[in-house]
Amino acid sequence: MTSRFIKKLSKKKGLSPGTLVFVGHERKYEVGISLIDYDENKLVEKKIENIEDCFPCRDSQSTCWINVNGIHDLEVIEKLGRHFNLHPLLLEDVVNSDHRPKLEEYDDYLFIVLKMLYYDEEQEEIKAEQVSLILGRGYVISLEESEKDVFESVRERLRKGKGRIRKLGADCLAHALIDAVVDNYFTVLEKLDDTIEDLEEELLANPSEKILEDIHNLKRELVFLRKSVWPLREVVSEMSRESSELISNDVLPFLRDVQDHTIQVIDTIEIFRDLISSILDTYLSSINNKLNAVMKVLTIIATIFIPLTFISGVYGMNFQYMPELHKPWGYPMALLTMAGVATIMLTYFKRKSWL
Amino acid sequence: MTSRFIKKLSKKKGLSPGTLVFVGHERKYEVGISLIDYDENKLVEKKIENIEDCFPCRDSQSTCWINVNGIHDLEVIEKLGRHFNLHPLLLEDVVNSDHRPKLEEYDDYLFIVLKMLYYDEEQEEIKAEQVSLILGRGYVISLEESEKDVFESVRERLRKGKGRIRKLGADCLAHALIDAVVDNYFTVLEKLDDTIEDLEEELLANPSEKILEDIHNLKRELVFLRKSVWPLREVVSEMSRESSELISNDVLPFLRDVQDHTIQVIDTIEIFRDLISSILDTYLSSINNKLNAVMKVLTIIATIFIPLTFISGVYGMNFQYMPELHKPWGYPMALLTMAGVATIMLTYFKRKSWL
Amino acid sequence: MTSRFIKKLSKKKGLSPGTLVFVGHERKYEVGISLIDYDENKLVEKKIENIEDCFPCRDSQSTCWINVNGIHDLEVIEKLGRHFNLHPLLLEDVVNSDHRPKLEEYDDYLFIVLKMLYYDEEQEEIKAEQVSLILGRGYVISLEESEKDVFESVRERLRKGKGRIRKLGADCLAHALIDAVVDNYFTVLEKLDDTIEDLEEELLANPSEKILEDIHNLKRELVFLRKSVWPLREVVSEMSRESSELISNDVLPFLRDVQDHTIQVIDTIEIFRDLISSILDTYLSSINNKLNAVMKVLTIIATIFIPLTFISGVYGMNFQYMPELHKPWGYPMALLTMAGVATIMLTYFKRKSWL
Amino acid sequence: MTSRFIKKLSKKKGLSPGTLVFVGHERKYEVGISLIDYDENKLVEKKIENIEDCFPCRDSQSTCWINVNGIHDLEVIEKLGRHFNLHPLLLEDVVNSDHRPKLEEYDDYLFIVLKMLYYDEEQEEIKAEQVSLILGRGYVISLEESEKDVFESVRERLRKGKGRIRKLGADCLAHALIDAVVDNYFTVLEKLDDTIEDLEEELLANPSEKILEDIHNLKRELVFLRKSVWPLREVVSEMSRESSELISNDVLPFLRDVQDHTIQVIDTIEIFRDLISSILDTYLSSINNKLNAVMKVLTIIATIFIPLTFISGVYGMNFQYMPELHKPWGYPMALLTMAGVATIMLTYFKRKSWL
Amino acid sequence: MTSRFIKKLSKKKGLSPGTLVFVGHERKYEVGISLIDYDENKLVEKKIENIEDCFPCRDSQSTCWINVNGIHDLEVIEKLGRHFNLHPLLLEDVVNSDHRPKLEEYDDYLFIVLKMLYYDEEQEEIKAEQVSLILGRGYVISLEESEKDVFESVRERLRKGKGRIRKLGADCLAHALIDAVVDNYFTVLEKLDDTIEDLEEELLANPSEKILEDIHNLKRELVFLRKSVWPLREVVSEMSRESSELISNDVLPFLRDVQDHTIQVIDTIEIFRDLISSILDTYLSSINNKLNAVMKVLTIIATIFIPLTFISGVYGMNFQYMPELHKPWGYPMALLTMAGVATIMLTYFKRKSWL
Repeated sequence: MTSRFIKKLSKKKGLSPGTLVFVGHERKYEVGISLIDYDENKLVEKKIENIEDCFPCRDSQSTCWINVNGIHDLEVIEKLGRHFNLHPLLLEDVVNSDHRPKLEEYDDYLFIVLKMLYYDEEQEEIKAEQVSLILGRGYVISLEESEKDVFESVRERLRKGKGRIRKLGADCLAHALIDAVVDNYFTVLEKLDDTIEDLEEELLANPSEKILEDIHNLKRELVFLRKSVWPLREVVSEMSRESSELISNDVLPFLRDVQDHTIQVIDTIEIFRDLISSILDTYLSSINNKLNAVMKVLTIIATIFIPLTFISGVYGMNFQYMPELHKPWGYPMALLTMAGVATIMLTYFKRKSWL
Repeated sequence: MTSRFIKKLSKKKGLSPGTLVFVGHERKYEVGISLIDYDENKLVEKKIENIEDCFPCRDSQSTCWINVNGIHDLEVIEKLGRHFNLHPLLLEDVVNSDHRPKLEEYDDYLFIVLKMLYYDEEQEEIKAEQVSLILGRGYVISLEESEKDVFESVRERLRKGKGRIRKLGADCLAHALIDAVVDNYFTVLEKLDDTIEDLEEELLANPSEKILEDIHNLKRELVFLRKSVWPLREVVSEMSRESSELISNDVLPFLRDVQDHTIQVIDTIEIFRDLISSILDTYLSSINNKLNAVMKVLTIIATIFIPLTFISGVYGMNFQYMPELHKPWGYPMALLTMAGVATIMLTYFKRKSWL
Repeated sequence: MTSRFIKKLSKKKGLSPGTLVFVGHERKYEVGISLIDYDENKLVEKKIENIEDCFPCRDSQSTCWINVNGIHDLEVIEKLGRHFNLHPLLLEDVVNSDHRPKLEEYDDYLFIVLKMLYYDEEQEEIKAEQVSLILGRGYVISLEESEKDVFESVRERLRKGKGRIRKLGADCLAHALIDAVVDNYFTVLEKLDDTIEDLEEELLANPSEKILEDIHNLKRELVFLRKSVWPLREVVSEMSRESSELISNDVLPFLRDVQDHTIQVIDTIEIFRDLISSILDTYLSSINNKLNAVMKVLTIIATIFIPLTFISGVYGMNFQYMPELHKPWGYPMALLTMAGVATIMLTYFKRKSWL
Repeated sequence: MTSRFIKKLSKKKGLSPGTLVFVGHERKYEVGISLIDYDENKLVEKKIENIEDCFPCRDSQSTCWINVNGIHDLEVIEKLGRHFNLHPLLLEDVVNSDHRPKLEEYDDYLFIVLKMLYYDEEQEEIKAEQVSLILGRGYVISLEESEKDVFESVRERLRKGKGRIRKLGADCLAHALIDAVVDNYFTVLEKLDDTIEDLEEELLANPSEKILEDIHNLKRELVFLRKSVWPLREVVSEMSRESSELISNDVLPFLRDVQDHTIQVIDTIEIFRDLISSILDTYLSSINNKLNAVMKVLTIIATIFIPLTFISGVYGMNFQYMPELHKPWGYPMALLTMAGVATIMLTYFKRKSWL
Repeated sequence: MTSRFIKKLSKKKGLSPGTLVFVGHERKYEVGISLIDYDENKLVEKKIENIEDCFPCRDSQSTCWINVNGIHDLEVIEKLGRHFNLHPLLLEDVVNSDHRPKLEEYDDYLFIVLKMLYYDEEQEEIKAEQVSLILGRGYVISLEESEKDVFESVRERLRKGKGRIRKLGADCLAHALIDAVVDNYFTVLEKLDDTIEDLEEELLANPSEKILEDIHNLKRELVFLRKSVWPLREVVSEMSRESSELISNDVLPFLRDVQDHTIQVIDTIEIFRDLISSILDTYLSSINNKLNAVMKVLTIIATIFIPLTFISGVYGMNFQYMPELHKPWGYPMALLTMAGVATIMLTYFKRKSWL
């Protein structure tokens, strides 16, 4: 299960850095490539079979967005890298899906690694898919680990042609893509929020043993989420501080906006951690309290009956000379004694407020 | 319950940033707008029906304060934004009531987001309402999420015409508004202080199971409070360090004063966290001690009577050849033996100081 | 009880900042004012009835120290403020006894807020009284919240006329006053040290339930102490870094000395926190161990006698056809069996090292 | 066992710093020295018997890599030091295998200390072997504590003559060696990951007492791992910030890559710590729950039978005048009473949801 | 016991700073003074009776080291101070043995306070003795609190005349003294390491109640150790960054070496804290597990016999009309029933895996 936290990098051991090796879960689907070439007035959208078909757009005046779904076809990545003159280490990072979010500044482009997150209802855990962005002069290349696409909303906005996105250039597109990824985090947070709420209700209503497992799982999800989101804060903050000429001043307030959202996500994660740890405390204490209550009942019943049973035991002895046994008032007397002992003890417990 | 910690931002997913969408609890009341236009000598106060009626004051020489109660009427916000030339992202933040406190510096104005807090006696939790301030040259716009108004005291001071507030300009007004919000936090802290005090007393007097729930709730309140107040520290500190020409030197000491208060609020929150965690420790330990005490009684009573019962059981056996049974001294002998055993055990327990 | 952590600031809500309102415990004694005017050669000491009598000394060449005991007489404070040209916010801070230690630099004077601490033997808690210092050119004004005076030792040194204090000016006096306050902290620490020592001894000798309450109280005291001392570190460090011309180079090493003491106080508080938390751990564990030991005795006694009692129960049955009952060896046989069972069980427990 | 955390440095006490004393586990094998002398076109590889045979290569134009396996032969180290003009303290650090990773800049060379880690399957713990690198102009000297060699993959790449490594000089070789060491950490992390996964499965399936020991051991391993890796972060970061002319700009991106890996290792260690602490919590709670469940069964069985036994005890008393005993309905009546009592108690427990 | 953490500074309360008061444990031995005057060629070593005899060496060309054992003779300290022109506050710090390690730069000398640590086998705790160093031009004065001497090794090296120490001047001597003190820490760490190792072994073999006390004591020792060593890090780091002309460049690498050792000591202390807290966790859990195991045995034995005893009780009742009692198969039937009930319960427990 924990294998989520570390992908098997060791198979890369001993290879020269810059060697392309796909690191990730096995993928079987075909790599999908799409190209959108747009400026303020026109927009051309194409499904691409052959990666070479994208290359002309690099030199066009308009902004060009190449989106690749699937990073396991190393040949595609290599061709792309050669044409756009990308650093070998960058390509290595693209195909290794186990990277922390980061920003790297190269001479002609910025390289951004993000984590797209979604909640897998079936396995009941958060999944992370790596998304790499390359922001160059007049183009954006986005490389997604999975078939799933989170950028449909951005495409919609481009097609509609409204808003700033068509007027501003590649930097605005890059912002829109990052924004789409970060917006998605809130869905995951809401899912977790619901789970925590359910847990709190269950905790008060009926604290069963399953809660313990749920809490442990939630903690694991939060650890995972944190790992995926935490470094993003720095990434976006670096971008908005960036002196790079690839990012225009018009886009800076929007980046600040994304940063606000990122900080909010991180805050919420920390709050969830606090809440879960408080839930665990409360759960453990309430379990303890329950044990306590059960123990009390045992104590009281046992403690009352043990002396009574002893008395009945005494009069069950077979000694020949036990004067009480032969008196008519013997039996009622014994019963009364028992009742008396029971009453005294109940009173004592009551005074100690154990009842 | 936890839904307080994250409002449903996901409904904004896929929209272009800068699109106005009201994010918050549903509001039904009508938006209320008031305008106060003042300088050292005069003060005009108006209830406004139509937001356009506020616009002339922007160009007046006097200081003008527009207060809007209710941010769910997007049309009002948009008109205001267009006239005062406010950035679309700023407007988006105003209507999204789930923002952390923050300060943003624009060319012509400062934008400040605050949280107004009050204790909801009915639901027994702290509520936060967002307050946005826009401080421009000669005007302040305050936008409150709720119908509730925390600025009445500021209005009073303006009307009375005493003190610095009428002499100094818009920056002093902005300070007064922030001060009113922060002063309000102390009411909430005092409420929590009382609750903690009650808890401590209950803890010593009668540690019932309800304490556990109270502690968990208090923790949640503190987490919520912290989330709302913590970023404010940075906001005020940034303002007082601000090189912005919108804030005059005369107002700086007052901002430092607000910052002192903010730090005091945060200190107190941290102290409350410490106290609550200490209360939890003490509660758990005292519960444990109680269990301990109960166990001891069980042990002692059970342990004393079990051997006695055994002895009576022996003499209750029906063997034909049990010489003791037929001796006159059999019964008193058995009783004496029992008394002896009981005495030995009690002495042992006493020496072990279990009694 | 916790009301110590937050004084009722809310009664100030809605007032203009700079309005004087006394915030603190109710005071009934009369305000006492004393004046010491000295230079290297002469020293004049006066009890003052009327605050105006202090004012001439401001313009004298000698150093002048005005000490006010009691800050609840607002008129005195106001007159003082007017004559020495003190900022309204400063006066507000003086009369509000719920401030954190802080240093504020004004144009003509430094304003320092300190906490004088002492251990109240009766209520068994640490009390804090606010002390405000105003260090101007040639004068020091000290304002104490309480009647209690911590500056007697400084007065003694001034009267004796020995040491640097008479040669150096107002800055040296200010240092001496701060030093007197900080020295006082060690008395409180020693008191706490003794309490912790007692607790540790009690813990080993006889861990009663009262320890729990003591630990909780100690924690509260430390939280309180920390709140009062922690910000002082920054205050003194700021002073000794201060470029202010009010503080001469000759006094700097002495300030560094005070800073050393402050750090030592804070270190000791942290050490106490560590120790108390370790004491709590140890206490809880030893309580647990005790429960454990008690449980073992119960287990062993009960477990040994329950089977024996069962055997005696069997032979106490009234079946007509129980051959053993009628054999002469029946009774000794039964007793031997019982002894055998007991021996086996004891051996088993011994082997499990439960004995 | 903990002796891993501190090697016996005290045997060095009192010696002048710079005196060579081997500090480490006793080593018996012979020191192995190998030399690789290469440039873009040629590669010469030699096993060396006599350390003096390496010295000529220092002045060659090509890049020269001297690898020494075994640091316990002080004579070899001293000769090397004298020829390459190494600082005595550097040599002392080389032979003292208990150093934290660090980077030291000398005039003519950089000195880097690393920890090579591997998982010892037999002793089930992580072992650390010290690796020292000296990067000079045109040469790299690597000194390994153990016979084990982690640099075979680097040698392979050099022999194949492909990739940047043969073209770039000594700095690239140094990077390759560090990279080989860091890559190795992932193997250790994967091993730990597997162990944690096993633990989590065992935790859910069958939480035995052995888990506790496993958790403690894992914690110790993580403490050890952290100690070995944590300072590396700073080392690599310093190197990539290094203004030293020994490191060319071409190598900087590769160093950044190593730094990324280091941060990833540290992140993973922190995540493992979180997971283990969560596993411990869960384990303790589930043990508690189990105890709880067992207690409940005891309570219920005991609590039901104790009153029944009491009833049977009453009718086992030998009083002469017990009217019930002589009625034909006495026995069934008694049995019915018992059944009734049992039913009432079961119902009560059911309603309390203890069943 | 805790009095170790704070010496009674309060007796200094009210005195002018710079007044010499010995703060420390009472000392009865006589103060011992030794003088070593050396340069590269000669070395003169003297026992001194009268402190004035040291003064001439101050103006000699050679390096001079005055070592004073015992700081309770204030007259000696005062004379020394007057002759070497030492600041009164410095002298005060020398005789007050409760100072944190610190470095103070005066015009003509550096003042360094260190803690010499040793493990007192008798009282089983770490003791700290204060060592003050004054490094001036051509002389070093070392003042030790105790009779014990840690500098014998340095003296040896000086006498042998080998190594850098005789060639380099007073700064190298100061380094050697600090180094001797820090080297000593490793002995203490090794002692603690052994104790922790013993604890871990005892923990696995036989977790007795004494462990709890040992853990608490170890924690106290670590708190104490940390207090004594932690500030040293900054001291040495400051020294090696020091622009003071008193420290020559040749000595800097050696200071860096001492700093490495200090960091290693601090690292090890933190590791020990981690280990001890893990040991405590493990101990508590294993105690819990033991209780658990004991409880299970009780449950099982009690739960099995309670119903059997009940059955025997039933047939021990004295009802006249109990048909079973008079049947020949009654007794074996009852025994069989009992065996059956026992078997069913054992099977149930087995299936629940409680056995």
